[in-house]
Amino acid sequence: MVVKVYGPDYASPKRALVCLIEKGVEFETVGVDLFKGEHKAPEYLELQPFGSVPVIQDGDYTLFESRAIARYYAQKYKHQGTDLLGKTIEETGLVEQWLEVEAQCYSPPITDLIYKIVLDPIRGLTPDPKLIKESEDKLCKVLDIYEERLSKSKYLAGDLFSLADLSHLSLTQYLMGKMRKEYLIRDRKHVSAWWDDISSRPSWKKVIELWPGLY
Amino acid sequence: MVVKVYGPDYASPKRALVCLIEKGVEFETVGVDLFKGEHKAPEYLELQPFGSVPVIQDGDYTLFESRAIARYYAQKYKHQGTDLLGKTIEETGLVEQWLEVEAQCYSPPITDLIYKIVLDPIRGLTPDPKLIKESEDKLCKVLDIYEERLSKSKYLAGDLFSLADLSHLSLTQYLMGKMRKEYLIRDRKHVSAWWDDISSRPSWKKVIELWPGLY
Repeated sequence: MVVKVYGPDYASPKRALVCLIEKGVEFETVGVDLFKGEHKAPEYLELQPFGSVPVIQDGDYTLFESRAIARYYAQKYKHQGTDLLGKTIEETGLVEQWLEVEAQCYSPPITDLIYKIVLDPIRGLTPDPKLIKESEDKLCKVLDIYEERLSKSKYLAGDLFSLADLSHLSLTQYLMGKMRKEYLIRDRKHVSAWWDDISSRPSWKKVIELWPGLY
Repeated sequence: MVVKVYGPDYASPKRALVCLIEKGVEFETVGVDLFKGEHKAPEYLELQPFGSVPVIQDGDYTLFESRAIARYYAQKYKHQGTDLLGKTIEETGLVEQWLEVEAQCYSPPITDLIYKIVLDPIRGLTPDPKLIKESEDKLCKVLDIYEERLSKSKYLAGDLFSLADLSHLSLTQYLMGKMRKEYLIRDRKHVSAWWDDISSRPSWKKVIELWPGLY
């Protein structure tokens, strides 16, 4: 059964896609054009009532929310491909802790920056430098804590590349591209080395080659 | 070994506390007064570098982020107390999906409302009715989807009371108390019945009796 992934051109679905590649799970993608409002079409809302991407269909099973999808495949294929969850319950706890940090602390300011610098101008809105500075300051505080953490362990949850690291790829890639905010990463030695490591994985290279999106 | 839970008076730590009670895990609490800035003290930041609550200590093991803590104990004591994760990987996938919905869609507007209606006045700020209305409208859209979902299944992830439902308790309780926003729940038949069910669990009653906080 080939897994169907909806919305490959956007950041959140890429979190699911890179996980599927790391786990060696076959999939096909279905385009969802958010700019044309395809995520608000009744047949899409049947699959994903909040009208966001991604959603996956795996036979009769439908699942949404990118981090839930990534956890599901990491667990379902625990012993196939890269182990993304850790060997013990304690390791998995730390993976979950840093995955929550990504969702609760890291992603909100970076998403704000993406809206203000990349998406608002597409909609004809002029970015407000003061608001951009505020989001950047919030992100810097988080990155300073990452720098300290990554000075002590190779990856966020410890010695293993895990779901926590993987989950950072799709939004961080924006900083390194046309947003011209790569200094936020490059000014921090350990964060910079971590980014070089995780972003050079064949899984991530494949994702951005096949679905460059707005990077 | 008794688990130490820091910060029981606040909403996020209550997510961990109610999970520990459901699982029958012994714990003790350590007060952290956010109004006195105790979460920014160096010894606290050693445990939780972001300076937020909760954090737990379980022997040598330290873990933060309330949903990560809840997942850890739900998994560690899978066969003790209430099963909060579901019987199959597919059920767990749905639990994770709705737990992510809680974190990404439900909690942000309700947290905004708590700041605007409860916390800002404590700090001497006057609430802006327009901003309150905006957050309430966002929350209503989410609750409309919950109403539809809960018309088809007893709990969010299916027939089982799970981490997904449990994770809603601590923030929803605010709506029902001094915020006087209980109509958001009561105007929706299935959401209202669901709330009565989950909030009448002995675990939750014990939490709000012992740590009434700002409810």
